[in-house]
Amino acid sequence: MKKITVIGSTGSIGTQTLDVVRQHQDQFEVEGLAAGSNAELFVEQVRAFRPKKASVANREIADKVRSSIPSEVQLFHGEEGLVEVAAGTDADTVVTAIVGSAGLRPTLAAISEGKHIALANKETLVTAGHLVTDLARKKGVSLLPVDSEHSAIFQCLNGERAEDAERITLTASGGSFRDLNRDQLRHVTVEDALKHPNWSMGAKVTIDSATMVNKGLEVIEARWLFGMDFERIGVLLHPESIVHSFVEYRDGSVIAQLGTPDMRVPIQYALTYPDRWISEAKRLSLAEVGKLHFREMDFERYPCLRLAYECGKIGGTATSVYNAANEVAVARFLNREIPFLQIEHIIETVLSRHEVQAEPGLEAIKEADRWAREIARSV
Amino acid sequence: MKKITVIGSTGSIGTQTLDVVRQHQDQFEVEGLAAGSNAELFVEQVRAFRPKKASVANREIADKVRSSIPSEVQLFHGEEGLVEVAAGTDADTVVTAIVGSAGLRPTLAAISEGKHIALANKETLVTAGHLVTDLARKKGVSLLPVDSEHSAIFQCLNGERAEDAERITLTASGGSFRDLNRDQLRHVTVEDALKHPNWSMGAKVTIDSATMVNKGLEVIEARWLFGMDFERIGVLLHPESIVHSFVEYRDGSVIAQLGTPDMRVPIQYALTYPDRWISEAKRLSLAEVGKLHFREMDFERYPCLRLAYECGKIGGTATSVYNAANEVAVARFLNREIPFLQIEHIIETVLSRHEVQAEPGLEAIKEADRWAREIARSV
Repeated sequence: MKKITVIGSTGSIGTQTLDVVRQHQDQFEVEGLAAGSNAELFVEQVRAFRPKKASVANREIADKVRSSIPSEVQLFHGEEGLVEVAAGTDADTVVTAIVGSAGLRPTLAAISEGKHIALANKETLVTAGHLVTDLARKKGVSLLPVDSEHSAIFQCLNGERAEDAERITLTASGGSFRDLNRDQLRHVTVEDALKHPNWSMGAKVTIDSATMVNKGLEVIEARWLFGMDFERIGVLLHPESIVHSFVEYRDGSVIAQLGTPDMRVPIQYALTYPDRWISEAKRLSLAEVGKLHFREMDFERYPCLRLAYECGKIGGTATSVYNAANEVAVARFLNREIPFLQIEHIIETVLSRHEVQAEPGLEAIKEADRWAREIARSV
Repeated sequence: MKKITVIGSTGSIGTQTLDVVRQHQDQFEVEGLAAGSNAELFVEQVRAFRPKKASVANREIADKVRSSIPSEVQLFHGEEGLVEVAAGTDADTVVTAIVGSAGLRPTLAAISEGKHIALANKETLVTAGHLVTDLARKKGVSLLPVDSEHSAIFQCLNGERAEDAERITLTASGGSFRDLNRDQLRHVTVEDALKHPNWSMGAKVTIDSATMVNKGLEVIEARWLFGMDFERIGVLLHPESIVHSFVEYRDGSVIAQLGTPDMRVPIQYALTYPDRWISEAKRLSLAEVGKLHFREMDFERYPCLRLAYECGKIGGTATSVYNAANEVAVARFLNREIPFLQIEHIIETVLSRHEVQAEPGLEAIKEADRWAREIARSV
């Protein structure tokens, strides 16, 4: 029996995680569930999975849902509730499916309690990779990637010696605007941006795919997950998103992980590693797909990816600022305040004004994040 | 220091094995070398690698080369010499690069002496898979595939549980005539047949690629190497030969091994497994390749592959007869005695007249082989 906790249970990754649990009901026990403000779905999940502890965004929502959930479920709320659910149960593994920098504290708390992390929250490693990987090493817990690209790399490293891996390459679909040139990007709308060709995801990450910020964040995450220098992490355009990523070994062999685009596969792998369980995911037929295309990444076309590499190499608070500036910029774009190309302009401007602090602690990361958001709102 | 012996050292796989040894000179010791009748190259190899034991095809060649090789090298000849070199040295691993059924006895002898086998000789598993895998299991030795397809599968199974693998797929370039239909095959010449699009190989295996017999033999080998039913072994047309083969897992994940076509990579892997050593092989650039194509195997177009599956499922002496009939048919085609399409006709006719013996011993295998060759010469 695998005991798990899901924080961010009502989001895209959270609901798909619970789909996986549903498909293997007798092999999982859900110890904790934490959601934000989707009260209706939260109540449904709590009733279905009967966790020992559960949490919602704030007291108001907690009061609203209390009477609808079984009385034996301990209900918490707010940041403290999140930490309680992440770290205060008997779960072996915590799925950090929560979006944004709110994921950092509960993740660190869970690691401190010796829980393995099925990592879907990008900010954890982007803003505090040095703290999180250090603590995980000390506590002997695994950081198991949930992102399809990182899961692919993780799978391709299976059974191999780390020193034999020469280079890892993340594939990128190119997002909604991959067939447009920079001139054509001036006039794209929010509606255009939200049409991702391969994956169905939340609005924020869909925009991040179009700007290639998403891949930039993944490159930074990969650096921490796999202990690779940025020089050894590549990005390759691959419109079909069938080859999820690959590892090149020093003997010239390339090991790749492929599949249909279905997040339940990497989610399940993070929960069952090193085993693989049966999945209902649609099987890949390469004969049906017929052709796979690959082309060199274009850093002129996607300046946000170039910026991510630069921030990653600088390190310290630079990656937190990159991430925070982007979050604000995307929100402003989705809010129709700014045109699409302004997103990269905002990130670049905020970064240019930032004085990087090396090896920041939690407080310094928070402060850099706060500062970046403030500037990003005014650019 | 890895101690190896190469039987079939002057052939395509043999010379490439010694290329690998040359690239890692201080890490390999060549204990034994066995060649056929290429006396000149044999002498050169013996002088360069100074094995303790060496062997050639017959007494005549042995007498011819004796004065040209160092006197401390023990020289043997014939089938007994082959067995002596394969089994009678301190080698940890024997590379069975010899072509044809002559490979079987020395391979069994080497396994009996507890030597791991880097397996390039197809006949070993095609004709005597049950005997060879039984003995290897008893002796606790590894059968390490050298073929690019089997090496790919072997690499994709690395670090995984056997029971999690749902299906393996061997890719096939389609050979020299992949763009011709069956009607056009009536008039092809030996010269046309020898132009393989991707790999530079010997004449026999190049013809076997065009008839798909080569893939048929590989399917049968895969059954023994990976303990898979034929229902779980697929073949996919992939003209570029970049994806060397792949494994589908029960969670829906596909792990594939890719690379430029360079046999030194799988040869080296068989010798260094589970480690990977640096190789001079050209690195794969998927951006440079640009496109990969895949299409369903066509068993009507390639009836020899269908026959291989049928023989494999029947088992016993059927696979030996398939292999022997094909060898004679290909020799007759290369000798311009018969047209290309007569190859499949000969195999099918010989098989239709064969009374299969289940679980044959070495003698029965030899007898089936002899019988099949006789019939194949007269069809």
